[in-house]
Parts: sequence; structure tokens; C-alpha cells
Amino acid sequence: MKIQEGAYVLLFHTPRKKWLTKAVPEKKIHTHLGVIDVGAAIGMEFGSVLRTTEGNVIFLIEPTTHDFIMKSERKTQIVYPKDLGFIAARTGMKNGSKILEIGTGSAATATFFASIAKPEGHVYTYDVNPAFMEIARRNLEKAGMTDYVTMNQHDPHQGVAEKEMDIAIVDLGDPWTVLDQVHDALKGSGAFVAICPTMNQIEKTATELKKSGYADIESIELMIRVMEAREGMTRPSMRMIGHTTYLVFARKVQKKVHVEETVDDDEEDTEE
Amino acid sequence: MKIQEGAYVLLFHTPRKKWLTKAVPEKKIHTHLGVIDVGAAIGMEFGSVLRTTEGNVIFLIEPTTHDFIMKSERKTQIVYPKDLGFIAARTGMKNGSKILEIGTGSAATATFFASIAKPEGHVYTYDVNPAFMEIARRNLEKAGMTDYVTMNQHDPHQGVAEKEMDIAIVDLGDPWTVLDQVHDALKGSGAFVAICPTMNQIEKTATELKKSGYADIESIELMIRVMEAREGMTRPSMRMIGHTTYLVFARKVQKKVHVEETVDDDEEDTEE
Amino acid sequence: MKIQEGAYVLLFHTPRKKWLTKAVPEKKIHTHLGVIDVGAAIGMEFGSVLRTTEGNVIFLIEPTTHDFIMKSERKTQIVYPKDLGFIAARTGMKNGSKILEIGTGSAATATFFASIAKPEGHVYTYDVNPAFMEIARRNLEKAGMTDYVTMNQHDPHQGVAEKEMDIAIVDLGDPWTVLDQVHDALKGSGAFVAICPTMNQIEKTATELKKSGYADIESIELMIRVMEAREGMTRPSMRMIGHTTYLVFARKVQKKVHVEETVDDDEEDTEE
Amino acid sequence: MKIQEGAYVLLFHTPRKKWLTKAVPEKKIHTHLGVIDVGAAIGMEFGSVLRTTEGNVIFLIEPTTHDFIMKSERKTQIVYPKDLGFIAARTGMKNGSKILEIGTGSAATATFFASIAKPEGHVYTYDVNPAFMEIARRNLEKAGMTDYVTMNQHDPHQGVAEKEMDIAIVDLGDPWTVLDQVHDALKGSGAFVAICPTMNQIEKTATELKKSGYADIESIELMIRVMEAREGMTRPSMRMIGHTTYLVFARKVQKKVHVEETVDDDEEDTEE
Repeated sequence: MKIQEGAYVLLFHTPRKKWLTKAVPEKKIHTHLGVIDVGAAIGMEFGSVLRTTEGNVIFLIEPTTHDFIMKSERKTQIVYPKDLGFIAARTGMKNGSKILEIGTGSAATATFFASIAKPEGHVYTYDVNPAFMEIARRNLEKAGMTDYVTMNQHDPHQGVAEKEMDIAIVDLGDPWTVLDQVHDALKGSGAFVAICPTMNQIEKTATELKKSGYADIESIELMIRVMEAREGMTRPSMRMIGHTTYLVFARKVQKKVHVEETVDDDEEDTEE
Repeated sequence: MKIQEGAYVLLFHTPRKKWLTKAVPEKKIHTHLGVIDVGAAIGMEFGSVLRTTEGNVIFLIEPTTHDFIMKSERKTQIVYPKDLGFIAARTGMKNGSKILEIGTGSAATATFFASIAKPEGHVYTYDVNPAFMEIARRNLEKAGMTDYVTMNQHDPHQGVAEKEMDIAIVDLGDPWTVLDQVHDALKGSGAFVAICPTMNQIEKTATELKKSGYADIESIELMIRVMEAREGMTRPSMRMIGHTTYLVFARKVQKKVHVEETVDDDEEDTEE
Repeated sequence: MKIQEGAYVLLFHTPRKKWLTKAVPEKKIHTHLGVIDVGAAIGMEFGSVLRTTEGNVIFLIEPTTHDFIMKSERKTQIVYPKDLGFIAARTGMKNGSKILEIGTGSAATATFFASIAKPEGHVYTYDVNPAFMEIARRNLEKAGMTDYVTMNQHDPHQGVAEKEMDIAIVDLGDPWTVLDQVHDALKGSGAFVAICPTMNQIEKTATELKKSGYADIESIELMIRVMEAREGMTRPSMRMIGHTTYLVFARKVQKKVHVEETVDDDEEDTEE
Repeated sequence: MKIQEGAYVLLFHTPRKKWLTKAVPEKKIHTHLGVIDVGAAIGMEFGSVLRTTEGNVIFLIEPTTHDFIMKSERKTQIVYPKDLGFIAARTGMKNGSKILEIGTGSAATATFFASIAKPEGHVYTYDVNPAFMEIARRNLEKAGMTDYVTMNQHDPHQGVAEKEMDIAIVDLGDPWTVLDQVHDALKGSGAFVAICPTMNQIEKTATELKKSGYADIESIELMIRVMEAREGMTRPSMRMIGHTTYLVFARKVQKKVHVEETVDDDEEDTEE
């Protein structure tokens, strides 16, 4: 596919030397590999090669959502692809899913969810911060997702309008404060997930979920490690990400019915 | 939503005591919690409660793909939700994606990918084993995915018919044997991923990818750990899954152009 | 070395089929591999082979502390070798170390520490439970460590008699309750470590350590994974231990002097 | 304990701002926290406080082996405390142990092992590189370990003189080339461990061990993660070490006797 003027291109040399930019006429990027004539990419095929003024190879890669997320500046505030992907798989997210999101942020996660749920599904997202909502609005327009995401600048603690949602994702510092509102919005046995960076948050969220008409409550962490796979010398990479976030999953069920989970569920034979 | 006759229901007591079954009249399941009158679930709401003959609580949960996968018998042969979800997020899979799959197996992964790519996308899957293809065909029908998945009982080593694919997933014991065929099928800078259970496979696959017109080659492992999140006593679970599979990602680029990755890319300051 | 009568022998077939027993005349062990004539091991060399009545191979292995720990019954209450070894390495434990231990348990850890600190060092251990102390006393005799371990059936909250200790290890449910007493017992910049199974415990312990004249406070978890290393098929094992315990390390310093650790210390560049 | 002239001191402000140096008169260290008058530490107590010219707190910490290792320059070549400690615990290393080491390097590991094995034990270490042996010799003198470590500048492939060793540690790029020589040197059922950074090395080593009169062969990796334990905000650290090395353990047994480990040993129930 030819690169259009104004399209985003990932200029890729190696995993640590790559740049995400718009293909605009006359644009040049000065790097230690030489100058990259970005304008020259217009009309070239994705996957083909541009060379810097010093002859270094730059592959023209069509960026995916993953590339956009990994090149974003506010790393500490993003939800990583491993966590987003697992949320989607774990909650059964698919075309047609009706998704409630509490905590819009920059709309990066709403964009990801909408890209899966569309065209028959929809994301209803809530936030109270007008500055964030403005950024989110622009990001959704840039991503072409405005038809599939409805933004609500409204305090979800007051309740949300939606009903019979398939999935609810909560990204707040205190997710346990919206469990009733989300319960009302979910369909019977609908999927719940909270994004909780700290142990304190999963403890409070899981404890409150048990009392609020949710079952199958499970807190998870996913760790990702890169492997250096080279002929005769394969081993894991020397550094890795230590933590991104915990995820707390649950299913909406009838209220005021509780099942005591015996300690047996956790005790298992341990051997080193 | 009311449970229809013939619909699948997850009968949930606790994470370790649950059963996945069809709601059929007269059906009963004998468990150590008492007898579950499955037929009585017909017409009840998902999320509501059925009690066993001994008064134990059974929540009626609408199963997601995750529930189906986790209750499947051939555990050692499934691709886990954490890996499926990451494949989707990492490759930018979404509605409209044109996906090539080499190695159909039971069609579980094709079903998952199609559920995301539909209705504008499509999965083209290849396998040579007639027994598997037959099982896969039935599974796709059961899952209602036949419109979005095209099965090919054809040896992919002979080449595949598709072109301009967005994403290619290879699930073979020797993925390095189809790199050229997949290269031809992918669009420029299209995403490649191989499912490789052993280190030997990632070593061979990554080495061959480098020589076959692919860039941004990365081998990954995702580890998942359950946290016991309880008031005053939060800690990780005593046992965890040690390994499911490695994943090797890459992007199709122009052939015969190579970038030497300096050892610097990997050397980083290490501190305990 | 020849096996003496009464000596412990690890009868080893495979990692999952092994028995730890005393070599006593006439003793036989019935296993699904056949009957093992344990008495026949007396006078044989460690490392040599005994065959069961069905001709299966049993290697006669001289048990190490590791073998004893891993064959102990109360798995959930042991401190694992990976954690014990790290405590020793991290605190600079060696011959001559003067070690204070709060929480004797079965004396397994005191035995391990004494085996390193002897003959010039010593372990001073405290517990209040007479039943445990009795078991501990017998275990120390069996292990031949009574010269190097002094037991105190005395509530450490009342203070401990020792001074100028090199290392203090606290294995209590509420380690933050003995920080002052341990501070008094340690030499200047002596090493402290608390064994804390839950996140609640490390949070409380670390918080109190900061206020109690300790610096270089670090909470750690060590995860261990077995690799299946086989020709052409190397990969991690499918299951692994998810958690044993957290360890909180610190150094005794002057009281009432505090250094604010800037948030910078933790913020680092994160990349997937 | 008072700081002697010429003694090593760890000048500690925070985990990321610390300096390891000798207390020598007139010495000053210029840091961004101000100037540290190192000479003034002489005669002060370990654990007490020195302030920089800008009033910042510096704790005077008595360095342990751990502190020395972690401040060493050649990070990529050290064996980490978590691995050293586990080697000691796993092999039953203690006072009196007779230890064979193949691959002396800088003598850091020989120093650690000798500190545990002394005074009744001994380390016999082999290397062929005269430059390393010279550095090693000086390090052993500095550490005061020359009585407990015998250095051999001799190619271990030619065989080693020692017999009846309790433990053998091999730190070579090709450990499988010395298995017979080490077998001859070990006592019956003596412990073997190889330090293997890559998957290729554990595969080759484990495969050869099986054929060379060793049993209970186990390949391990230990991962270490720091926890940020703070009131109300406890979570794992954002970054962690991804890999240091694999360790391959085994026990010397009679040669030419083999036990087939059934695949059952590895297959276990897997659940996400």
C-alpha cells in the first residue's frame, strides 16, 4: 500500500532506533544515523526502504495501535498492549460488544476497544476532567472512532445511563466506589474489569466486589519478557518491565447471594 | 438476558467448582454440592441463582470465549487467552483485518480472530490434517463463524493464494519453513507472529526471519500470575503457570536489505 | 563415603520418585517401582546403585540440607532454599557471623544459618511457644548444631539480651513490633531481614523501619522456575511456584535521622 | 564498631546514591549532594551519620560481600547474590565443605564460597588465564581468603588433582567439556552446578550430564523483583532484572546406569 501524504509512518532502523511521524512534504528528521527525508516516503510502498544521507537503512512501516501506544510520551499512564489484549480476550470482547468505560483518560483504551467492537458494538466512556475530555475528543477524531465511542462528561458516581452492557472497564484510582453503578449498567453475568496499579487497590476492589453482587472475582498480573533469540546464544533479555498494573476481573450476578470460597481453593502442593 | 433452550451456560459455584454445559430440558448434573437441575435454568436470567438439592448456590453465567477455552479438555494444545489477546493487540488486529493463519488445529484461534475481525475482515486458515479440518469445520459452525473463516485443506509450503494480508499467524512445529510463502501473502509491513513453545523454535524462527525480508523481530514470553486479594492478607497465589508458549513477532519488509543490530541494543545496566 | 548404619539416605529414582529415610537393618520400603531393601544400603557407597525387586534403579544419594527441606511435610511453613540462600548472600552471612533470630519455628532456618556461621559464629534464637521449642531442640540435636545455637524461650518484645549482632532475621506475623528491640541488639549498620508472606506485612514493616533507625530498606521477591532442558526441545516447565514469601532487608543506622527518598528513585523509562 | 583507617565504607544516602570507598585521611568525594569528607569517617561508628557540605545525610555502612558485588564495575560478568546464595543453599554448602571451582574469574565467587566453607573447608579453583589469575590473587589477598583458597593455573580439561570434593562449581562457556574430570573429583553423590547464561548451554550441559554418571539433573532460573512497599501504595517496581543466568544442578552417581525419566514427570494440569 502506498504511503499517502499526511499518513503516519514508523521509520524503523532497529527496535531502539525508530521514529513515528507524519509523511509530510519537505519534512526531514535529523538523526545520528543521518538525515531522513520523510517527504520522500510519500508515494512509496509500506515495507520498502528509504536510506538516510549516510546510507543507513530505514524501513517504512505502517504503524499499528501497538506502535502508537509504545511511542506515546506519557508511558506511566498508558495501559500496555499485553494488558489491553488480555482484557479483550478475558472478557470475550468482540464485534458487537457494548462496552462501558469509566475513566476515559486520553481515549487510547476506548480507541482500542472500539476497534474490536465496531461496527456493531459501541463504547460508552465517562470522565469528569474537561481537559482530558478535550484531548480524548481530538484523539478519537484522529483515530476515526467518533461513530463508535460516546463520551460522557459526567460523574459516574451519580449513576450511568447505559443498561445491559456486555463489559465494563473501570480505570479510576478508587474503582470500589462505582461498583453499584456498574452493576446496574451490566447485563446479567456481564464482565467487569478494574485496572489497579497497586496491591492496596486490588485488595479493596476485590473485597468490595464480593459484597456487591459479583462472582468469579480474580486478580491477575501479566509479566512480559523479551527473549534474545540468536543462533547458539538464546537467552532472556537482561532487563524487563517489572510491573504495569494488576487487573481485577469479575462477573455481575444477583445481589445478596454469597458463596464462601474455602481456603482449600488456594492451598496446593508446593515444590521447589 | 433469558437463557434459551440449547444455550451454553457456565454453572458457577467457585473458580474451582464450575461446569460448562448446554441448558437442555430434564438434564441434571450430579456434583458433590448436590444435584443441579440444569433444565430449570431455561428461561432464567443470566446472572441469577439456581440452588442445588443441598441448597448450594450456583450462578448462571453466560460463557465467553475465555470460559470455553479454559474448560476445554486438551489444555496442552490450546493457545491461552493471555497469548491470543496479546497477539491481537500487538498486531493491531481489529474489525476489517485480513488474517492468514497457518495451522488451523481445532479452529479455536481462528474463531477468536474472526470474532474481532468481523464483519469486514476475514480469516484464511490452512491445515493438511483432514481429521483436524473436520473438527475445525464443526467448531466453526457451532461458533457461527463460517461466514468469516475460509478453511483450506492445502499444504501451505506449496504457497498460499492470499495476498495483501494484514496479519499472518503461524502455528506449526517448524514455522521457519513457511516464511517465504507468508512473505508473499502479507502486505508491505504486514504483521507476522509465530507460536513457538520451545527456545529451539524461537532461535530458528528468529534467525530465519532475519534472512527472509522481515524486520522488527521480537520474541516474547508472557507470564500470568493470580493474586489472592483478601483484606489484610494479599499475596500472590502459591502456584502459577510456568510456561505456555513463546511468541515471535516481525514485520514484512523489502527482501535482501539487512540492518545489523549492534550488541548495544541489548546491553543495559543491571542492578539487583 | 560408605553409608553408616542410622545415616540418612535419599533413595533417588527420578525427581518425582525419591524417598528420604534412615539406613536401618531389615528396613524395606514398598513402592510402585518394587521393594527397596534399605538395610542393604548400609556399607554401600553414596552415589552407587541399589535395585528394587523389579530391577528399577535407585541411586543412594547423601542428603543435603536442601534435600531435607524439600522432603519436609509442612511445606507451607518452610523457608525455601532460594530465600534462605539469598538471605545469607544478601546479609553477608559467613563463618563467624553473630546471628539473632526471632521466631525459631522448627529450627530449620537456625540450622541452616548455624551451618554457615560455625564454628566461630553463633545463632541466638527466640520463640515463646513451648511445643515449638521442644521440637526445635530435638531437631538441633539431630542436626548436631546445639553448640552453635542458643535457644531462648522468651518473649522478644520484652527485649533481647544480645548486643552487637551482625545479622537479625525476624520470622513473625508482625515483624514491625520488634524493630526497636532488634535495633538495640544489632551492631552499627548490622543487617536486618524480615520474612513477610503478604504485601500487607511488607508495607507495614517497611513503613515502620523508616521511622525506627534503619536505612537501605528493600523489599524483594525471588521467583524460581525449572527449565526442561532437553536436546532440541528446551523450554520452561509448565508449572511453577507462584510465591513463597517476600523478604524485607535493611541496615541499622543512627535513630532520628531520615533521608527522603525522592520519587525519582523509582521512576524509570518503561518499554514493552 | 569504629571505622579504621583504610577500611572500606559504604557511604549511603539512598539506594541510588551511594559510594563504596576506603576511609583514608584527607580524602574527599565531590557529589551533587555536596562534598563528603571521607577522612572524617575514620574513628566514627558504623551506622552513624556524616553530613555533606550541603547538610545532606550520609550513613556510614559497613559493606558486606553483597555491597562489594553490587558496586563492582563489570556487572555483566558477576554472579549475582541471588544465584550465589541459591548455589550455596542448594548444594548444602557449609563450614567444612571441600569445593572445586572451574573458572576462577576475579575470584569473587571463590571468596564467597570460602567465607562459608572456612575454616574447616577449602576452595580449589582452576583457570588458565594468567591475567585473571593475577587479579584473582590480589582480590583473594584483599579479602583475606588466601588460607582457604588454592589457585591452580592449570587446564582442568587435563584433569584435576582433587578427589572426594563435596561440591563442584563450573563457570565455563562450555561446561560439558569437563564433566568427566569433575566426576572423578567429586565424592559419591557430590553436588555439581554449572553457571550457564544461555539456553543453548543448559541444553548441552543437561544432555551430556545424563550420559556422564550424574542424576537429579535440574536446570533453574531465579528471577528477582523489588517491591515498592509504601503506605497505601504498595506495588512491584516498574523495572526489574530480566535475566542473570541459568543454573544446572546434578549429583554424581555411578556411571553407565541410566534411569529414563518418563514424560509424565513434566506433564501437569495447567490452568490460567
